[in-house]
Amino acid sequence: MNDHTSIQKIRIVLVGLGTVNIGVLKILIEKKVIIAKNYNLEIHVMGVADSSGIAVKENGYTYEELIHLKSNGNKVNQLEGYLSGVSIEQITNHIKADVLIDGSPVNLKTGNPGLQAIRNALDKGWSVVSANKAPLVLAYDELHQLAKKHSGKLAYSATVCGGLPVINILQRDLQATNLIGFKGIFNATTNFILEALEKDGSFDDAVKEAQRLGAAETDPSLDIDGYDTANKLYIIMKSFTEFSGTISDIQIEGIRAITSEDIKQAAIQNKRIKLLAVAEKKADTWSLLVRPTKVEASSFIGNCDGWEMGIELQTDYYEELSMKIYEEDPITTSAAVVRDLINISKKSF
Amino acid sequence: MNDHTSIQKIRIVLVGLGTVNIGVLKILIEKKVIIAKNYNLEIHVMGVADSSGIAVKENGYTYEELIHLKSNGNKVNQLEGYLSGVSIEQITNHIKADVLIDGSPVNLKTGNPGLQAIRNALDKGWSVVSANKAPLVLAYDELHQLAKKHSGKLAYSATVCGGLPVINILQRDLQATNLIGFKGIFNATTNFILEALEKDGSFDDAVKEAQRLGAAETDPSLDIDGYDTANKLYIIMKSFTEFSGTISDIQIEGIRAITSEDIKQAAIQNKRIKLLAVAEKKADTWSLLVRPTKVEASSFIGNCDGWEMGIELQTDYYEELSMKIYEEDPITTSAAVVRDLINISKKSF
Repeated sequence: MNDHTSIQKIRIVLVGLGTVNIGVLKILIEKKVIIAKNYNLEIHVMGVADSSGIAVKENGYTYEELIHLKSNGNKVNQLEGYLSGVSIEQITNHIKADVLIDGSPVNLKTGNPGLQAIRNALDKGWSVVSANKAPLVLAYDELHQLAKKHSGKLAYSATVCGGLPVINILQRDLQATNLIGFKGIFNATTNFILEALEKDGSFDDAVKEAQRLGAAETDPSLDIDGYDTANKLYIIMKSFTEFSGTISDIQIEGIRAITSEDIKQAAIQNKRIKLLAVAEKKADTWSLLVRPTKVEASSFIGNCDGWEMGIELQTDYYEELSMKIYEEDPITTSAAVVRDLINISKKSF
Repeated sequence: MNDHTSIQKIRIVLVGLGTVNIGVLKILIEKKVIIAKNYNLEIHVMGVADSSGIAVKENGYTYEELIHLKSNGNKVNQLEGYLSGVSIEQITNHIKADVLIDGSPVNLKTGNPGLQAIRNALDKGWSVVSANKAPLVLAYDELHQLAKKHSGKLAYSATVCGGLPVINILQRDLQATNLIGFKGIFNATTNFILEALEKDGSFDDAVKEAQRLGAAETDPSLDIDGYDTANKLYIIMKSFTEFSGTISDIQIEGIRAITSEDIKQAAIQNKRIKLLAVAEKKADTWSLLVRPTKVEASSFIGNCDGWEMGIELQTDYYEELSMKIYEEDPITTSAAVVRDLINISKKSF
């Protein structure tokens, strides 16, 4: 807590103005004084992009005007500073900043607009905080090399289990430790659906309820078919092991075929069915899979309920380390973005 | 991972040559290559102190010779470089180093020799990694001010729940977050004893078994009477909140009065008795207590068994974050010291 040094001004650009980045702005309002006092940081929003285009402003936007814009159902093209005809990815050419925050939608085909926006930011020597898994899944090595080349930082703790600091713990607390394996529940929507099935609900009703609560997408197949879980498994592997494979090295099976009857049968054996991500070290390679699995009802993983996500790590020195988070409110993911922003800012600019 | 920069030589001094620091040396042997490759660090042991005195050596001791000394039942006064008549705390006057590691015994009356050795190291601008709670409990503010004044670092993640990175998560992952409260099981020995009582064992037998396994001290009262748990609660409060009180602000009750009968009565209600540390925010103050408490058997805390320690945090943004570690082998605490050493070294020297 450096009370005596002068305040650092961090200039940010927001790509995406959906739940994650609006949450970030709300936290920046609520914690403005704390962020200034405890970390000597002042965060200025120099530019913003959404599906309608980009807007930039030399003195920055207030957090409030961006939240106001969105809550009125408007888009970036209604903002002062809107630049017509400029693609989202090119926002980095129109303003000077220190950090780009990618809160744009997951696009697993091209990764864009997030991927290209991140590339452009790193190319300019900016740092990047990403809440978007797609660019990391499609170009993990490339983006890390770019960051290294231009001395930028790349943080993405929000991409795995929202606020649960899995990536941070692996990289900063388990140094010099060998990972033996882990298993986890990385997708709260499927966990909620499985719990609804346990309560004798139908699969379709559970999906609809998750959608109504804002947790599941209109097309929930990313969650249900296991791809979201697999993406997180991949990001963990790349972040902490020498794993050099691709996402296609993960065997993936979702929960579409699970019935209430399967769950009743499991309950008779004191088991529950969970969609697990599992990594096991096998000599010099890894077995990686995403699969609905029967687990002991009384185990740590068996006790991850509904909106919880969790992971159980086996390592050489730390024996068994387990952690979980209950997050019904997506503000948790925004808080993870803010922690990354503070962490990379306080040491670098 | 800075593969291309030259290796950093970190000079350390070990205060205490018991389980913790011998474990540190074993890890430094096993992970020498990884520590060099991934963190560009080479760790040199310039001096060592135990109850027999201090020894220093200009070119450093090998990890192996110190382990060998100890496994042969010898003490520091048998080492080349032994300085007769010098007190442990003065080791900092006889050698140049970067980091002092305090793995000396907990002494809650004076904090020494650890407290004075830490003071002397910080005064010289060294950094300190402590696995010893006493200096922090007795002089938290003073030691942090000293570290700041001389630009040293002070890390102590091993003091709370061994390898569970509670302190790190609070300080580095929950920034700009308001803590609402937490409860935890911070002492594995008492947790083991309570579980033995559940299995109809006697209190005395359980204590003896914990002692036989090397977990409980010859005088286990620090554990059993709740003081060890209270010390950890205090360190957490100081590390993450504005709490300005002392250890005497914690109400402490140990487990000596718990009987098998109490536990059976609790079981009838599907509850278990655990020695909890509880912090609750009350307006501008905190309610802090250590007390045997009935908890739901199916809850996260109720499921922390035997050699596990765990914590359940309530915050404004992260809703509920729970984590636990199973550690029967004290190597976990040594691994936490090594992680602190790597973390403070890779950024500073």
